[in-house]
Amino acid sequence: MISSADNDKLKTIRKLAQKSWRDKLGLFVAEGEDLVEAGWEPVFVLRAGVDVEPKLLDAVSTLGSGTRVIGVYEQRWAEPSGDLSVWLGGVEDPGNVGTIIRAVHALADGPVILGAGCADPWSPKAVRASMGSIFARPPARAELGDLAGSLVALSAHGERTLDEVELVPPVVLCLGAERGGLPAELEQGAVRIDVRSESLNVAMAASIALYEAARRMPPHG
Amino acid sequence: MISSADNDKLKTIRKLAQKSWRDKLGLFVAEGEDLVEAGWEPVFVLRAGVDVEPKLLDAVSTLGSGTRVIGVYEQRWAEPSGDLSVWLGGVEDPGNVGTIIRAVHALADGPVILGAGCADPWSPKAVRASMGSIFARPPARAELGDLAGSLVALSAHGERTLDEVELVPPVVLCLGAERGGLPAELEQGAVRIDVRSESLNVAMAASIALYEAARRMPPHG
Repeated sequence: MISSADNDKLKTIRKLAQKSWRDKLGLFVAEGEDLVEAGWEPVFVLRAGVDVEPKLLDAVSTLGSGTRVIGVYEQRWAEPSGDLSVWLGGVEDPGNVGTIIRAVHALADGPVILGAGCADPWSPKAVRASMGSIFARPPARAELGDLAGSLVALSAHGERTLDEVELVPPVVLCLGAERGGLPAELEQGAVRIDVRSESLNVAMAASIALYEAARRMPPHG
Repeated sequence: MISSADNDKLKTIRKLAQKSWRDKLGLFVAEGEDLVEAGWEPVFVLRAGVDVEPKLLDAVSTLGSGTRVIGVYEQRWAEPSGDLSVWLGGVEDPGNVGTIIRAVHALADGPVILGAGCADPWSPKAVRASMGSIFARPPARAELGDLAGSLVALSAHGERTLDEVELVPPVVLCLGAERGGLPAELEQGAVRIDVRSESLNVAMAASIALYEAARRMPPHG
């Protein structure tokens, strides 16, 4: 049983709290029974009281309340694919990125595709917000110019509403940052979700757009 | 300019971080320009460098990065009303409560109605998640038995889907805790949102259900 904070596995977990180390090692951390159960084959798992002294595991946890199990995993990036997927540009909040990964898992057959300026999906907060969906539906990376299919951009300022446009699969729903909005090339022709206020956040807008698109694009073939 | 942490207004702000004091005083705190601009008439507002030394305001802020303005407001509860509203039971996460307040503001004409076991909507985290919508659409309180209208309960285990049921206004969409689910009396007859996984959180489910209901219940007369 690990009894020293100087242990290499504990050191690795501490490093993986930082994006620079996640990028360098290509690894990430999932904390808690539910996430570790949802995970693919781990590089290693540490269980409190089994592999490591509980207080040492708590000390490397990013949860305020500590944790009973931590797994370390290889990052696996997907390719853009599917009849329905979501592209995000400049979505900086890791909670939103994780929540939208959860939403595509629930409502679409494709992944979340991350453009420039998005939060790291492998950060502890994003992984937690995905509630394990990051393992079932790992994210992809691509810039707008490299996407294939019908790009349907969502913007609060869209002239038409989402239910007015035809959806020809493969459809990529494109959403921008909460404040910055979409890249200029997408604002033209963007569609909106009809709301009484301008008060939908990007995760809510993504969930609603995915629901609407999934409803109108029944599984084919 | 306030130059002592011993000041009564600063003391009040510190107290209001606690639910017991919010309940006792019937007040709450909103931090930041956007929220204070959205607010109703404040009991008082403190601006950094104008009314108070900046470091003293930062010291009572619940934001990690400090703040330039804090307002203190009276709590205002609404009555259940509207053709479309949301009832929540046991939703303990203040971020979810605030997000759903934002969603009703965007998509419905009625309020969020809080049943037993819900997070305090006047907590700093809920107020922040509402992005000011708590001022535009203050929450109501009621238990299930006191609600009027068609109660449409959402459950991952519903036999029918939301789009299969008739929606006769006034409609109250009822959602339960993420883990605990709905009260037993509501599980019977509950409807589900069609998903590929069971991975919708309560705020996403509420947003989608509100969108679907709003889409099918155009404003009348």
